[in-house]
Amino acid sequence: MSKLSSSLFHFRNQLSQRNLSAKDVRDALPLQGFMSRAFISTARETFSADGKFADRIIAPYSIYKGKAAFSATPVLPTFSKLGSGSLKVDRRGSIMLKFWPAIGERKYDWEKRQLFALSATEVGSLISLGSKDSCEFFHDPSMLSSNAGQVRKTLSVKPNDNGYFISLSVVNNILKTNDRFSVPVTTAEFAVMRTAFSFALPHLMGWDRYTHQLPQSMYENPSSAKVVSPLLDSEWDK
Amino acid sequence: MSKLSSSLFHFRNQLSQRNLSAKDVRDALPLQGFMSRAFISTARETFSADGKFADRIIAPYSIYKGKAAFSATPVLPTFSKLGSGSLKVDRRGSIMLKFWPAIGERKYDWEKRQLFALSATEVGSLISLGSKDSCEFFHDPSMLSSNAGQVRKTLSVKPNDNGYFISLSVVNNILKTNDRFSVPVTTAEFAVMRTAFSFALPHLMGWDRYTHQLPQSMYENPSSAKVVSPLLDSEWDK
Amino acid sequence: MSKLSSSLFHFRNQLSQRNLSAKDVRDALPLQGFMSRAFISTARETFSADGKFADRIIAPYSIYKGKAAFSATPVLPTFSKLGSGSLKVDRRGSIMLKFWPAIGERKYDWEKRQLFALSATEVGSLISLGSKDSCEFFHDPSMLSSNAGQVRKTLSVKPNDNGYFISLSVVNNILKTNDRFSVPVTTAEFAVMRTAFSFALPHLMGWDRYTHQLPQSMYENPSSAKVVSPLLDSEWDK
Amino acid sequence: MSKLSSSLFHFRNQLSQRNLSAKDVRDALPLQGFMSRAFISTARETFSADGKFADRIIAPYSIYKGKAAFSATPVLPTFSKLGSGSLKVDRRGSIMLKFWPAIGERKYDWEKRQLFALSATEVGSLISLGSKDSCEFFHDPSMLSSNAGQVRKTLSVKPNDNGYFISLSVVNNILKTNDRFSVPVTTAEFAVMRTAFSFALPHLMGWDRYTHQLPQSMYENPSSAKVVSPLLDSEWDK
Repeated sequence: MSKLSSSLFHFRNQLSQRNLSAKDVRDALPLQGFMSRAFISTARETFSADGKFADRIIAPYSIYKGKAAFSATPVLPTFSKLGSGSLKVDRRGSIMLKFWPAIGERKYDWEKRQLFALSATEVGSLISLGSKDSCEFFHDPSMLSSNAGQVRKTLSVKPNDNGYFISLSVVNNILKTNDRFSVPVTTAEFAVMRTAFSFALPHLMGWDRYTHQLPQSMYENPSSAKVVSPLLDSEWDK
Repeated sequence: MSKLSSSLFHFRNQLSQRNLSAKDVRDALPLQGFMSRAFISTARETFSADGKFADRIIAPYSIYKGKAAFSATPVLPTFSKLGSGSLKVDRRGSIMLKFWPAIGERKYDWEKRQLFALSATEVGSLISLGSKDSCEFFHDPSMLSSNAGQVRKTLSVKPNDNGYFISLSVVNNILKTNDRFSVPVTTAEFAVMRTAFSFALPHLMGWDRYTHQLPQSMYENPSSAKVVSPLLDSEWDK
Repeated sequence: MSKLSSSLFHFRNQLSQRNLSAKDVRDALPLQGFMSRAFISTARETFSADGKFADRIIAPYSIYKGKAAFSATPVLPTFSKLGSGSLKVDRRGSIMLKFWPAIGERKYDWEKRQLFALSATEVGSLISLGSKDSCEFFHDPSMLSSNAGQVRKTLSVKPNDNGYFISLSVVNNILKTNDRFSVPVTTAEFAVMRTAFSFALPHLMGWDRYTHQLPQSMYENPSSAKVVSPLLDSEWDK
Repeated sequence: MSKLSSSLFHFRNQLSQRNLSAKDVRDALPLQGFMSRAFISTARETFSADGKFADRIIAPYSIYKGKAAFSATPVLPTFSKLGSGSLKVDRRGSIMLKFWPAIGERKYDWEKRQLFALSATEVGSLISLGSKDSCEFFHDPSMLSSNAGQVRKTLSVKPNDNGYFISLSVVNNILKTNDRFSVPVTTAEFAVMRTAFSFALPHLMGWDRYTHQLPQSMYENPSSAKVVSPLLDSEWDK
């Protein structure tokens, strides 16, 4: 890392992290009205503004390059508590990618960011990508609504000499906009993503909850060798 | 398999765990209502509401394809507390696979599901599968009982152009049924399974319990540099 | 899995697990007198008998084959609490391997077991083993004592057609014994070991403790943006 | 680097964290006594006894070879609590490498140690290194200060017959010193590093915090199937 690139990185971090946290909070308060569930299941979220974000973590993995920057952040699944007391995954988690353009040397425009939420299976595609492989994902946020086809998001990952180009294209026929971001990601940066995404994946799926789930009855009958299974099903039930 | 067929697996459990698994089965059987799921969804399950399953997690990884669907769910091991206070794995955990057939476009018949519980070693086989490899597992739920050989379950994983075919065949000579499910699993979906199964495997084995196990005496002797080992055996014992 | 092998597995589990827990407790009470620290750092442990094993976990990964069986169990490191309050690793953790011979069909002699404690680096060697690679480790429990060279333990891992042979040889010139155990381990079983050992490795090293270590002052100054670093050193200190 | 040289890194920290890191440095400097370690051992460190470091963990992975030794230790990120209650990563974590020279047979001079803090991306580079690959990282602790270019640190990892040479060169034009350490690391030792670094990486990035983050409102509305998302952003926001 040369002096210049390293100082740039620091400068950028100051810019973006300051913008980021302020902006996020400001943006978050009004609920987004325009949401529809779609064929390709990516994240939709509802929330309110009564202080429940107290424990929100802000720890994106961010990559700043000449023409654009992008960051990746895990989004946990939400659970519903059923009448029985069980917790059911309500909406799967995702890895949220955000892209925003450079508007000058070491300057980025966070206002022009675009989002793309990778599903568990799309994450699976990325982390199993060979060094010569490419992949492409298509999202239509308005799918199944009357606006179907009006907004098309395409994420592509293509190999280059030292890693991949990760590009996001967003064609919005309603706003008549056409955004395209392309960020070269080095092999080392992609290794960070692969490792962090692999770490996050079971959590996106809610599988970490199984492993925190202790068979409580075990502790209730300390002198007994009987235990109650924490799960219902057996292969032999049918 | 009908309610009446007493599987060896349960028989074994009765031996070592007394009535526990029998109780589980009794509870579980009347609870299956008819459910079919739309194309994009995750499995919902019903169960009793007496608080027993209060901490149950429902977060299957589900794959819906043209002719059938299947889901994978980790099942934790059960532990017995011995007189000494030690916790011993009573029954190993597994990855429970469930298959159910399509009965129309985006309609599936959950009533006709069949189960297959992957042992730790079978999970090891799956997660180490090369892209051209195949594997096959055979289970006989009635093994060692008078019904031995009457029900045969075969799970096979075979490579195709973009991933694998995962198929379950269940031949039940008692009920005179012969079910077969085959689900094409893409490379990306298999990568999710591989990552999630690898994450789950140490938990299925009970090894996560070791890592939550703090040497308590350490905190009891804060001023001492001597600590007590949490485990008994040493290589030098013999 | 054929009926016979599966029933054998169950039978063996009953035998070995019953023996195991009873035996371990009995063996454990008297301290082993003959211990020395050695060139190849493997585990030595001290302990007492006052109930501190209450939370002991018994969850070995066991493989039973025709001529011998072996099991693998993680052994956590021990920590000392220094005057400053810091916790220092006192003795590194290990993966404890135990081998014991078959003495008839489906019968094993737990009394004749031999132990071999894999250090972190030896675990690193195992989990990075290619399918055609082999490795060999030598331990001398009496190294640096007057009995140096009297007991030699050799663990070897050698590829075969479907996995590896894992063999332990123990030559004890004091007792005039020469034990050798060899267990064929399938690719699937080795994948379980590789995954479980990789999971355990950071815990053997004590690195999981870093990740449970919250910077407490963060919560003590909730309105402040200042935080105290949980660690002293900086690259720029020197 | 002397006590007097004010590194850019600390300068930066002072900007955002005020006096914190300065305090750390002040505390730390007088504490280094002379220590040398025997061939088989783990690093011991000294520090003040005022309770500040009460929860500090000391568990380096250390490799001692003929001419030098080095150790690796994870350093967690620090977080700031924002007015909104969110926790923002303040400074990324790192893997701290320390090198110190041999000064005789099995004697090492801890006083002459040099430090190199691997960033997340540098860790990504190391853990994705093929067996024939090499990599090199350059750090300038005084970058952007008037001393820019006066101290240059270079870490290089180069393949050899059985693993890698890991070398640190520190050229200090202020002190007129030129230190170089080179440690041969076996394939097995590198596998430990790869596994431990991969384990630590999500923690260095702060991503483990996401996974400990339970949607608290879930438990506050036990009878409701609606839950509040722990995170704000949605792909459909724009």
